[in-house]
Amino acid sequence: MEQWVSVAREVAARLSEDAVQRERVGGDPVAEVALLREAGLLALTVPADLGGHGEGWPTAHAVLAEVAAADASVGHVLGYHYLHLWRLWQFDVPETAASLAKATAAQGWLWAGVANPRDDALALSEDGFTITGRKFFATGASAADRLVVSGVTPAGRKLTVAVDARAPGIRYLGDWDNLGQRMSASGGVEFTGARAEAVLGAQPDDEDPSAPRLSLPALGFQLILSRVLVATGRGALATAARYTREQTRAWPTSGVEHAVDDPHTLAAYGTLSARLDAAELLVDQAARAFDDAAADPALSWERRGELSVRVSAAKVVSSELSVEVANRVFELTGARATAARHGMDRFWRNARTLTLHDPAVYKAAEVGRHLLTGAVPAPSGYS
Amino acid sequence: MEQWVSVAREVAARLSEDAVQRERVGGDPVAEVALLREAGLLALTVPADLGGHGEGWPTAHAVLAEVAAADASVGHVLGYHYLHLWRLWQFDVPETAASLAKATAAQGWLWAGVANPRDDALALSEDGFTITGRKFFATGASAADRLVVSGVTPAGRKLTVAVDARAPGIRYLGDWDNLGQRMSASGGVEFTGARAEAVLGAQPDDEDPSAPRLSLPALGFQLILSRVLVATGRGALATAARYTREQTRAWPTSGVEHAVDDPHTLAAYGTLSARLDAAELLVDQAARAFDDAAADPALSWERRGELSVRVSAAKVVSSELSVEVANRVFELTGARATAARHGMDRFWRNARTLTLHDPAVYKAAEVGRHLLTGAVPAPSGYS
Amino acid sequence: MEQWVSVAREVAARLSEDAVQRERVGGDPVAEVALLREAGLLALTVPADLGGHGEGWPTAHAVLAEVAAADASVGHVLGYHYLHLWRLWQFDVPETAASLAKATAAQGWLWAGVANPRDDALALSEDGFTITGRKFFATGASAADRLVVSGVTPAGRKLTVAVDARAPGIRYLGDWDNLGQRMSASGGVEFTGARAEAVLGAQPDDEDPSAPRLSLPALGFQLILSRVLVATGRGALATAARYTREQTRAWPTSGVEHAVDDPHTLAAYGTLSARLDAAELLVDQAARAFDDAAADPALSWERRGELSVRVSAAKVVSSELSVEVANRVFELTGARATAARHGMDRFWRNARTLTLHDPAVYKAAEVGRHLLTGAVPAPSGYS
Amino acid sequence: MEQWVSVAREVAARLSEDAVQRERVGGDPVAEVALLREAGLLALTVPADLGGHGEGWPTAHAVLAEVAAADASVGHVLGYHYLHLWRLWQFDVPETAASLAKATAAQGWLWAGVANPRDDALALSEDGFTITGRKFFATGASAADRLVVSGVTPAGRKLTVAVDARAPGIRYLGDWDNLGQRMSASGGVEFTGARAEAVLGAQPDDEDPSAPRLSLPALGFQLILSRVLVATGRGALATAARYTREQTRAWPTSGVEHAVDDPHTLAAYGTLSARLDAAELLVDQAARAFDDAAADPALSWERRGELSVRVSAAKVVSSELSVEVANRVFELTGARATAARHGMDRFWRNARTLTLHDPAVYKAAEVGRHLLTGAVPAPSGYS
Repeated sequence: MEQWVSVAREVAARLSEDAVQRERVGGDPVAEVALLREAGLLALTVPADLGGHGEGWPTAHAVLAEVAAADASVGHVLGYHYLHLWRLWQFDVPETAASLAKATAAQGWLWAGVANPRDDALALSEDGFTITGRKFFATGASAADRLVVSGVTPAGRKLTVAVDARAPGIRYLGDWDNLGQRMSASGGVEFTGARAEAVLGAQPDDEDPSAPRLSLPALGFQLILSRVLVATGRGALATAARYTREQTRAWPTSGVEHAVDDPHTLAAYGTLSARLDAAELLVDQAARAFDDAAADPALSWERRGELSVRVSAAKVVSSELSVEVANRVFELTGARATAARHGMDRFWRNARTLTLHDPAVYKAAEVGRHLLTGAVPAPSGYS
Repeated sequence: MEQWVSVAREVAARLSEDAVQRERVGGDPVAEVALLREAGLLALTVPADLGGHGEGWPTAHAVLAEVAAADASVGHVLGYHYLHLWRLWQFDVPETAASLAKATAAQGWLWAGVANPRDDALALSEDGFTITGRKFFATGASAADRLVVSGVTPAGRKLTVAVDARAPGIRYLGDWDNLGQRMSASGGVEFTGARAEAVLGAQPDDEDPSAPRLSLPALGFQLILSRVLVATGRGALATAARYTREQTRAWPTSGVEHAVDDPHTLAAYGTLSARLDAAELLVDQAARAFDDAAADPALSWERRGELSVRVSAAKVVSSELSVEVANRVFELTGARATAARHGMDRFWRNARTLTLHDPAVYKAAEVGRHLLTGAVPAPSGYS
Repeated sequence: MEQWVSVAREVAARLSEDAVQRERVGGDPVAEVALLREAGLLALTVPADLGGHGEGWPTAHAVLAEVAAADASVGHVLGYHYLHLWRLWQFDVPETAASLAKATAAQGWLWAGVANPRDDALALSEDGFTITGRKFFATGASAADRLVVSGVTPAGRKLTVAVDARAPGIRYLGDWDNLGQRMSASGGVEFTGARAEAVLGAQPDDEDPSAPRLSLPALGFQLILSRVLVATGRGALATAARYTREQTRAWPTSGVEHAVDDPHTLAAYGTLSARLDAAELLVDQAARAFDDAAADPALSWERRGELSVRVSAAKVVSSELSVEVANRVFELTGARATAARHGMDRFWRNARTLTLHDPAVYKAAEVGRHLLTGAVPAPSGYS
Repeated sequence: MEQWVSVAREVAARLSEDAVQRERVGGDPVAEVALLREAGLLALTVPADLGGHGEGWPTAHAVLAEVAAADASVGHVLGYHYLHLWRLWQFDVPETAASLAKATAAQGWLWAGVANPRDDALALSEDGFTITGRKFFATGASAADRLVVSGVTPAGRKLTVAVDARAPGIRYLGDWDNLGQRMSASGGVEFTGARAEAVLGAQPDDEDPSAPRLSLPALGFQLILSRVLVATGRGALATAARYTREQTRAWPTSGVEHAVDDPHTLAAYGTLSARLDAAELLVDQAARAFDDAAADPALSWERRGELSVRVSAAKVVSSELSVEVANRVFELTGARATAARHGMDRFWRNARTLTLHDPAVYKAAEVGRHLLTGAVPAPSGYS
């Protein structure tokens, strides 16, 4: 793992160099994805016998923590990539999964999904190979090589398919112009009879023994979001700390000569840092629980439900902390740090945008209900 | 007063129409100041017998509350304008003040100051009429018609002079590219032997009976900032409430059909609104105290000190609330409100930028010290 | 008013002297009420021509602020006393009201109510003169001389009557053993055929023009609670500040010699004090609005609704502040201030108990709904 | 470990049964310590070959988490017991340590320390065997069988000695009457020529290689406090959740029938629970780091410093959370939960008292300084 954390740090350093300028220009993260590809990070979790680096979720999370602290958009896209690659193996098509994973390593593919639960479902042909419809947003899609697409057939089957992202009949609307996560390639996607490469599987009945396991991706997304959020907080804190150290002037009535000796600055950095440490451990714990659950071939609804509560807890804490840190660091850097060239607001814009993916208060309610009654959330696109 | 609040509301409505686009384009608030001028708001506080509308601080604050809620930059510039106009009368040059005030009404002048205490002082010739030096920022200056400039003469006298903002030897650096208050014309100013129109007065010795009164402007600036901050919070809340009402979709697991019935949304709006109400009353109270103190020809250091503590209290509360409201409203509008075209982040960027003018924690300390020991802050550029 | 504030301050000083010991002993506030009586505070709002001091709500609130800061229980009881006295005039029985008010001044009566909306209603005989039933709590009742009792007749009429608190058939359960408001005489009351002295009136139909006005008491109670809460915060802050000033030792690594120079202590006191100032102004504003509404003989539901929202806002802010201040002051006084003999926790216990009278979050929701939709709360025992 | 957690849960269940009554009566925790003794928890960490149960810090922390959640006083006393027992081995007197540990297991001794850094040091005779002086507070001492006492000799050597807690010349002042931790036997102790049993060691020079290791106890105390704090929060949350589940009535306007379905209640429990989870993980992490450092015979000042920062972070987060949870749960249980018989305020009183042991804000500053400059706190009685 250590080796890959080093690689991720180098990538993060490169991303940090021009994060402010890149974000201002906007557009799809083409160069950023190329950087990930060249560093070997896209093939990180592909099994070694298929040409990848054979690392598991712990390494993937450690890598995400570094990348997302430097650039939350790129971290977001990379996290979803790992999740979609992992999903391939969740379905009952091991040969297809192996073939796609092998090609991922060989071609340096980036994966993304098109399936947000807030829009109407996409329409699939009964065999699943033809896709029609539109999704309002789909993080990573316009920068991806391969897509994991979910939809419904005329007979009402919910299928998930793999698609060449450059296939005819797919249009990327390029309409993601939001205040944060600007490089996350999150614009809308329109399918007009696009052809899938492979059908990965159907959503099983709730009674199917594989149903709990196959419903894990929703938790995986929440977990990736939690990881990116806590990393965003970490990135904000580190960036602000460097600014305070190097540029902030002590306030005239503070009685100290250097800003790093200001008592309020010290206490505030310490408080935020300690809270972030705690939040990060909670995300780590949820990530371990996810990994364990995913490795359980006979995962029960009950165990899946307990995991869901843990993931929600991690989401609640990482959401509140990322925004709090990104918001408050300005009080520790002083007025001149608001100059646009420092781009110090990007952490807040990213955190604020990411935390609205789905409302944290309803995640909190899930944790609360479990504490009060033992009930676990009904599986959904978010839980 | 009611009539001018109506006028201000109309101006605010005009400013709100294209606030997002105007801010994106940036540059000096020329059209905005023209709007204020045409509406009569620049002459609002000029005595009626000098051609103005003869209103006092209460009306000025009521107007600022409306304008700043719609556009914090314009509110900031207008607030400083009122303050500089009022300052003219503080010096012992009633004829000069009358003449400048009269011209203000007649020509529709906008006033701004060049005197921030964080840079080295400007150099004035001994008679005060020649100005040399540079200030890092000076809100409103590049959009102003007349400047109130403070500096130091070779003999060490601290003088304040009035200057034609378009006089030769003044260069506006146009370098204000900050994350908030983007239309506040706050860039740097460079003087290379520019000529003043009039010397307004010298900073008196502390023992001079007029010294307490002449030191009021520092509190006036803090008060204007407090007013703009609380108005920014109000603007954020009102804008978000409109969005929630018109566009936010209820969350699937909320159990309600309309976002305006979501219990968390209701409680959060209510809490923020109630806190803002309280903050606004505190600013109102400080404004009345300022007005009273300013009307006291024999203002003592003691009474000036008590006022200073009240103003600091207003600054503390308005600072924390404006940022909190502007930050949290996103949780009440949902993910799509992060689209850049809504510009909903401008309130946070404005509040965050304004609150860093000087650190609120040191204002809080002033209030705390007064509570604990009865001591009042030493007069300074900020207290 | 100033005179009565002075009187209230003297009473408050007397109450403060042994607040800790009195609270520990507990029991009904007999001596405390005697103190109020001797100081003339029970007759404060009785019209002068009936033997009282003829003061209105503004003076009553100013008095309550002083008394409740010293002893929240006594402030609570006194506030309800003023409210019940005021209620006498709301009904259409001016002669009865005058007679009872006159006796109040002459005899030094304390009034309390028995009507909490959380229990089943009391049963009244059809003429209203016979009372049966039980109430779980009734603040002030066991220490009172006269009670205002609400109940329902067999025919379903909701009547309010006046009762001699010492009449046969009334039993005070003496079962108020709660963590705060320990001297508020809030135990249960049982009526077994007790006789009323006078019927004050019936609750009108909603269509009755007097209905909005007659529904004001619910708001009056909320307002009294807000006043007592904000005063409790003020009392906590003042008591802690005295301790910090006189007893707290500077922390070894603080770099200062005296606790009053500790930067964190200064900033925290200042922040809490400024927030309290704001909260107090919000309660003042709501109190003025209540007074105005009460003076409106043709009060409409709409205006009553607007008042209700203002009162809820005051309750929200005063609730959160009182608890926050009472909780946080310990951080400013240091470890030894936790010695039981200082009784510094009584402010938190009082605030915590009072804030649970009815949940502040539902008050916040009322304010939020009004902001979002313009709707006002349905009149009830709490709104 | 699991076995001992079960044992601890049983002890906790016994302590919970009458926690409210025991606390009200107060006095030394004699019966409580007997309970710990009988359950084998006092000998938990004594090596197996000396008659103990041979468990290490991880088990000790797991046990403390259970015990302190039920009774923070008893958890506090037990945690310090483990720490003092562990300290025996830190000195260079293995035979003495073994002998004392063996007796601890055989006799069921409870250990406590007398060494708080806020008072003047105790006076020891030059050989360390005679003790004179007074300490303001000493948690656990009056209930202990053996004391670890630190003092200074006439020649200025700082020695630590072991003392029979019932030896002549020791007087327990029994003056701990504080708002929280009422059963923690924290009153003052006076020595008038009391005799020590054994000299454990002298405080080394800073240059001595063993100095970093010998300075670990200060961090151990902080860690125990963090553990007890987070457990107190957990105890408060669990106790309140049971109350909400079993007794709280839904609020009339909530729209739900049962309090466990109230949306605000659910979200608040979930938020507090998630934050507590995170805080607990941070304490766990610090505990592991402490254990690792303690096992390092060549512990450097640098590594000791890094540990110190981690421990401070855990203290900061556990402090703020324990108070927050213990304060806010009342909002989730409703008004009747303030009845004294429920004793629900004991969690707040315990947390509030414990958090003032030393100011959390200076711990936060230590974390902040490390983040900003890499500096670690100077070793002291608190860091």
